[in-house]
Amino acid sequence: MTQTDEEKARYQARMAKKKAHIDQKVAEATEERGIIIVLTGNGKGKSTAGFGNVARCVGHGFKAGVIQFIKGTWACGERDLLEQHGVECHVMATGFTWDTQDKAKDTAAAQAVWQSGKAMLTNPELRLVLLDELTYMIRYGYLDESEVITALQNRPKQQSVIITGRGCPKALIELADTVSEIKPVKHAFDAGIKAQQGIDW
Amino acid sequence: MTQTDEEKARYQARMAKKKAHIDQKVAEATEERGIIIVLTGNGKGKSTAGFGNVARCVGHGFKAGVIQFIKGTWACGERDLLEQHGVECHVMATGFTWDTQDKAKDTAAAQAVWQSGKAMLTNPELRLVLLDELTYMIRYGYLDESEVITALQNRPKQQSVIITGRGCPKALIELADTVSEIKPVKHAFDAGIKAQQGIDW
Repeated sequence: MTQTDEEKARYQARMAKKKAHIDQKVAEATEERGIIIVLTGNGKGKSTAGFGNVARCVGHGFKAGVIQFIKGTWACGERDLLEQHGVECHVMATGFTWDTQDKAKDTAAAQAVWQSGKAMLTNPELRLVLLDELTYMIRYGYLDESEVITALQNRPKQQSVIITGRGCPKALIELADTVSEIKPVKHAFDAGIKAQQGIDW
Repeated sequence: MTQTDEEKARYQARMAKKKAHIDQKVAEATEERGIIIVLTGNGKGKSTAGFGNVARCVGHGFKAGVIQFIKGTWACGERDLLEQHGVECHVMATGFTWDTQDKAKDTAAAQAVWQSGKAMLTNPELRLVLLDELTYMIRYGYLDESEVITALQNRPKQQSVIITGRGCPKALIELADTVSEIKPVKHAFDAGIKAQQGIDW
């Protein structure tokens, strides 16, 4: 690709304008505090984004904690790896609701792991807390929504929290600073491709 | 929460039905091969999901590789961490286009790192290859779309690939097996909250 001098100058002017706009936005963002990030929607990538952010955080030398609701009966590569880096993980480990078929037992398991979550939300040493699949716990009535919200509101000022799961309750969306909705455009599983270790779990 | 026996039986029946449906879908998904996952859209979570999936993969003991387009001038916590686990990372490291303001130089940098990407796409030892921010390279014309597609099509059968970035070209969406569109509902940055190390980068 060869650019003429004129094309080059035009490109440079366009990019300089874009840079000025972005620099201004960066300059305007001055509030320094932890944030709440919600990753919801029915598409693939919510939990992996949560764990990826934990990897980013501990990769910079900060401390982070993980509460994993529902899952935990299968081997979890990302959790195993992050535990090697000092990430404290607590796992509900009941499996899916359609596997347990026992609401009282699931509720007790959710409540038990939530006590560890609440403790994390009071610990200023943790820069990031991942509450993976939390949304279901509220929707199923295993955890009390207002209790969760109070714990989130009272957390240390510099602590960030990531909440994942489908169908995030409205009150959590409102409380959050950053919300992404992950929409499924298509999924390999629906095309008959088997879920694979290292990719799907 | 106290369930009556009747409520308990109703719940169990509903979950048993759900389990039967899911078990059937799992049984129908029999094709075993690597997949292409596209994470696109304007919301937060694309690259972190990509890196989270790499963490999952190497956490299970598989090998993975990462090509990081555009970014790489900043410290990258998740890359530092994954390199400790043997993940081969190649980084374009030019910074954003509006910072470089030099299309010829950016194109050369993209082409150089793409050579490493092409080599990864022929390496059957790699279970997963992350092509982070690839979409921009095609959109900006730094890489040839058909060359990228040919390399993806000819990769080893069991290898999976994750492609991230906004505005994914249609041909890549069509080729992909799993596509998630990450929609921004809201973003802390727009509310004036400063980007933070360990969270935003």
